[in-house]
Amino acid sequence: MSGKKDVIPHTVNPDLLRERRAASFRVYEFACWWHGGAEKLRFKRDLEQEIFKDLTDHNTLLHYKSHEEICEMAVKQSIELAKKLRAMQARSNPGGNEIWPKLYSSSMVWGAVPAGHPFAVQYAMMVDAIKKQGTDEQWERFGKRVENFEICGTYAQTELGHGTFLRGLETRADYDRTTDEFVLNSPTLSAYKWWPGGLGHCSNYCLLVAQLYIDDTPKGVQMFIVQLRDEETHLPLPGIDIGEIGHKMGFYGANNGFLGLKNVRIPRTNMLMRNAKVLPNGTFVKSPASVLTYFTMVMMRCVIVQNSSTLLAVAATIATRYSFVRRQSPINPNEPEPQIIDHVTQQLKVFPEIAISIAYQLAAKSLWSLYYETYADIERGDYTRLPELHNLSCALKALCAADSNVGAERLRLACGGHGYLTSANLHRIVAAAAAACTYEGENTVLLLQVGRFLIKSWSAAIAGKPLTPTASYLAGPAQGKAFGPWTGDWANIVATLQYAAANKVRLAYENLAQRLKQGQSEGEAANNTGIELTQAAELHGRSFVAATFLAHVTGSEAAERSAALNRVLQRLLELYLVHTTLRHLSDILQCISFSDVELRSLQTRLETALKQLRPDAVPIVDGFDFPDRLLSSTLGSYDGNVYERMFDLAKQSPLNQQSVPKSFHTVLKPFLKSNL
Amino acid sequence: MSGKKDVIPHTVNPDLLRERRAASFRVYEFACWWHGGAEKLRFKRDLEQEIFKDLTDHNTLLHYKSHEEICEMAVKQSIELAKKLRAMQARSNPGGNEIWPKLYSSSMVWGAVPAGHPFAVQYAMMVDAIKKQGTDEQWERFGKRVENFEICGTYAQTELGHGTFLRGLETRADYDRTTDEFVLNSPTLSAYKWWPGGLGHCSNYCLLVAQLYIDDTPKGVQMFIVQLRDEETHLPLPGIDIGEIGHKMGFYGANNGFLGLKNVRIPRTNMLMRNAKVLPNGTFVKSPASVLTYFTMVMMRCVIVQNSSTLLAVAATIATRYSFVRRQSPINPNEPEPQIIDHVTQQLKVFPEIAISIAYQLAAKSLWSLYYETYADIERGDYTRLPELHNLSCALKALCAADSNVGAERLRLACGGHGYLTSANLHRIVAAAAAACTYEGENTVLLLQVGRFLIKSWSAAIAGKPLTPTASYLAGPAQGKAFGPWTGDWANIVATLQYAAANKVRLAYENLAQRLKQGQSEGEAANNTGIELTQAAELHGRSFVAATFLAHVTGSEAAERSAALNRVLQRLLELYLVHTTLRHLSDILQCISFSDVELRSLQTRLETALKQLRPDAVPIVDGFDFPDRLLSSTLGSYDGNVYERMFDLAKQSPLNQQSVPKSFHTVLKPFLKSNL
Repeated sequence: MSGKKDVIPHTVNPDLLRERRAASFRVYEFACWWHGGAEKLRFKRDLEQEIFKDLTDHNTLLHYKSHEEICEMAVKQSIELAKKLRAMQARSNPGGNEIWPKLYSSSMVWGAVPAGHPFAVQYAMMVDAIKKQGTDEQWERFGKRVENFEICGTYAQTELGHGTFLRGLETRADYDRTTDEFVLNSPTLSAYKWWPGGLGHCSNYCLLVAQLYIDDTPKGVQMFIVQLRDEETHLPLPGIDIGEIGHKMGFYGANNGFLGLKNVRIPRTNMLMRNAKVLPNGTFVKSPASVLTYFTMVMMRCVIVQNSSTLLAVAATIATRYSFVRRQSPINPNEPEPQIIDHVTQQLKVFPEIAISIAYQLAAKSLWSLYYETYADIERGDYTRLPELHNLSCALKALCAADSNVGAERLRLACGGHGYLTSANLHRIVAAAAAACTYEGENTVLLLQVGRFLIKSWSAAIAGKPLTPTASYLAGPAQGKAFGPWTGDWANIVATLQYAAANKVRLAYENLAQRLKQGQSEGEAANNTGIELTQAAELHGRSFVAATFLAHVTGSEAAERSAALNRVLQRLLELYLVHTTLRHLSDILQCISFSDVELRSLQTRLETALKQLRPDAVPIVDGFDFPDRLLSSTLGSYDGNVYERMFDLAKQSPLNQQSVPKSFHTVLKPFLKSNL
Repeated sequence: MSGKKDVIPHTVNPDLLRERRAASFRVYEFACWWHGGAEKLRFKRDLEQEIFKDLTDHNTLLHYKSHEEICEMAVKQSIELAKKLRAMQARSNPGGNEIWPKLYSSSMVWGAVPAGHPFAVQYAMMVDAIKKQGTDEQWERFGKRVENFEICGTYAQTELGHGTFLRGLETRADYDRTTDEFVLNSPTLSAYKWWPGGLGHCSNYCLLVAQLYIDDTPKGVQMFIVQLRDEETHLPLPGIDIGEIGHKMGFYGANNGFLGLKNVRIPRTNMLMRNAKVLPNGTFVKSPASVLTYFTMVMMRCVIVQNSSTLLAVAATIATRYSFVRRQSPINPNEPEPQIIDHVTQQLKVFPEIAISIAYQLAAKSLWSLYYETYADIERGDYTRLPELHNLSCALKALCAADSNVGAERLRLACGGHGYLTSANLHRIVAAAAAACTYEGENTVLLLQVGRFLIKSWSAAIAGKPLTPTASYLAGPAQGKAFGPWTGDWANIVATLQYAAANKVRLAYENLAQRLKQGQSEGEAANNTGIELTQAAELHGRSFVAATFLAHVTGSEAAERSAALNRVLQRLLELYLVHTTLRHLSDILQCISFSDVELRSLQTRLETALKQLRPDAVPIVDGFDFPDRLLSSTLGSYDGNVYERMFDLAKQSPLNQQSVPKSFHTVLKPFLKSNL
């Protein structure tokens, strides 16, 4: 009954071996390309080696624990991880930050904190916000202590009754001139802070986002440094009602918390005052530009695109390997059961998700470039590119989160019943991807913003005014230029998606205009056009992803890659483009007509693309180079010993440590006997 | 810090009150219609009252427990439930079976066994299988003991390496003539039974599905009565390796198990021998018709359609109520935040799912009718309708499971971040709906079967041969009849969906024929046409659902309903039909052309349908009549006291029972201090 490890062979599943031997390209070259070069790949591998070397228990064993045990475990694991990263930073480059704290909440370390990370928000947002919004004095006095992990904290913005709409926040900070303090209050239950990661029991400070009032007059949302718990005893300070918000479908150990405030007083100097200010006499000095606050949120969205596409790639790795190991249902009667990947319907479930994860990862790369360029612009006082970056980050965050959620679930289902076991780890990936659909700006709200940006762009295009680069494809259609012939080559497919996007923008624009003409207010008209606005935003975003993928594969970088690798990337691109075309076919057919032959040829191209990827699928996901510890999956480990691993983990269930459970004697037996 | 209940008001949220007062129809009439009449509604309510009256803890508190605690709890709750149902049966109708055991695994009792039900398979499949496959003697000797719950058991079919493809099972039953016994073995690890509900620790017997061998010659799959554990001690018998398969993403307490057999001997008379037989001399007598085995699986699929659509209705109830309570993001700047349902994009997330759940529930009703008619036919020896029933149950099972899974997740996302909390209970509904996509026949495998049925039907249609009723719409298109004008009325929409389905069947048929002509085997050709076969099956199934919905709303039953109720049902039908048309628009546009005006009018109809349902949405979900105990949701309770309930349950988290967790002293504080 014990979980002896020797049930797992030390050999690799022969089906996987065969696939790997037959690869048409060098996996190492793919991995180098994927991770940005040989040096970065080695750095990643060394880091993983170091972080994971002493971790022995399987990550999915956490599901046997109680919520409380999981939360305690998460604290322990997060602190262990912090220690390791700091030691590595000190060894390899003292004083630098490329390992600590930079990697503390990166995907590279996911395998070390499977239940989530109660200190992620401290490093992902709180430190950054104090640096950018606080004065130098505040940074010295407070920011450095947070960065140095002398105190622990979080960023407390959302409330029980208020999420994406920031201006709706209810928490109040009233300035009291007589004591030079702010008085903090949660006037209602719905004003309770709710969700901040680590707030429950892992923060003794927070950055509180609250409505500033001076003489009962609102001055807008500001940030305040608030001590929550005693540094020695960790007991909540007077007026602080704090705790965790309870169990969630994922991130079990992230310790998301609630916070109610009752007449909590903090010195005036605890408001972050790099931009807006309150003077001792109660004078409010407005922020010269609220742009930088805004910019932290943009950064978070870039992170989400990158992480969500990584989650999808993780799920694709697991489902791909399993699909080559699992055998079922003969294709020809009386033949042996084939690897399930030989069923074309299985290929359709798995391969497009590999291509989609790559497409978004490349889109994230482009988004990061734009981010750094725009950041450099802003430092020079030039804000012109900001709306473009903002809207692109909104669109990509919403689409990538949604596609990763749906895609990871599709991959989980592609593993059949076994995908339902938590030891497959797919449900945890789905749950992580799902979360990104609603945090950091709910997806639909973001798409509506993008939709409004597109309406403005269309309006400019009609007037012949200049357009931002990502919206430049609207110019032709807005000027009434018809779509040229459908040729189906890659550039033509991208143009098709853009044309369909432009058509959706046109429809939304016309319907909006008509509603305004009917006397609806701008808000009402926009709301009533909401469905088309989000559809336009979706097509706009996917066109961008397609264009970026095309540029990465066929652009100048291609010369640096081997012909073999380029061929594989071209096949992935072909699959992505054809699949995306078919996905949006109804949108396309509404503005471009296809003959029956052309439609059939698309279907043939899809089937061909799947077939061509079949021999390289395992090597491709190998090229993502995810270590087993990160995959944490019985179905997806490198060696493909699927059934042995499932069996081994099942045997480790606490229930299997004794032959007869207590409830047999106390409940079941008495009942059975009573029926004799 | 305690979970005092008095945080929850005894009043109903005013926004919900207002909606209910303004209903355009009588909720009670809807509820009567939905539950099949006033008497059935009362029966249901009385039953719920009785079952739930002494249950006080909130169901979602189970998520704070460890896996072992949850499993023990599930046993206890299942036995309590059995006792209650039997007592009620004895009180109201001794000797009957309409309450016990019939309702033991029905949706009415879900609220009493939130972690799943380790004895569900015993009553849903094992009893039925012994009755239908066993001899009268076997029923007397064994079946009655199972039915009477003197022993506990399950139905052990799937194996670690083998699921949907039954003939691939590896477990062996070798007949030993010398002792008149079968010798049972799991020859490999992949032959281990894996998944049967209750097998882990809640069965002392099982029905084992194994390959019968006589003199090493395979005789096909048969069923065997096998004792697994001692009735007194519950210890596994010699040669039995048994346990649970570990934690899953849902059905935490269903105790799914594994089973390995090593030279386990059972008497020859333990093979179920109503149909196939093994004589003492080793002669094998074939079953006269394997049709009845087949029929139990058909029944299970009917159950799944019904349950999956119920799950979707549960999720829709929660998301609808929450959408009327939650307020966010002004539509016009400077106005107060509206109920989020006033955002059109929110209506699009929620209302179609209400309509879809109703559509499938009505389809399930039609499916059950066909089931009972076919059953009666079979008892008269007439099997002609069986292929029709089989294929319809496959199509509806696959589609309803998939749509419920996707729909419930969409509804969960529609509740924003709060839908991520387990106290919302939406994730558990999604997890339950997701399971149905892979059990009792994996969805894609089922759709491929339906696809092949459609190919045969198309072939018959071309030849002018008669078609089964559900495939009769293929006749016209197969004979080259073009689609008449698009008028957009309801019957025309159903015809449109059918025509699009027929077109997909045609394409699949032609591509299949071409592949055969190219020399591919039938198996290969079918596999290569797999994508189109599943698409055809999908459209075929949805056409049926649409046709059924139309018939239920506009058929003769309408005269028995009030005009007000009929108007609401018509609006739901309108939304369903328009939404389904838009969903399959690319399939439709491939064979029927629409003008720009017609396309725009579809979009307008969608928006109008949403708007018209807005005032009745809360009353409609009230009409489903789900008690709070079944919903088990902080977001969806009848009184709409959302925030108070969320807060109350958060406070009940074990972590919140003390201000400072252990890990602060052991882990966090030492670390923070080391950084000073």
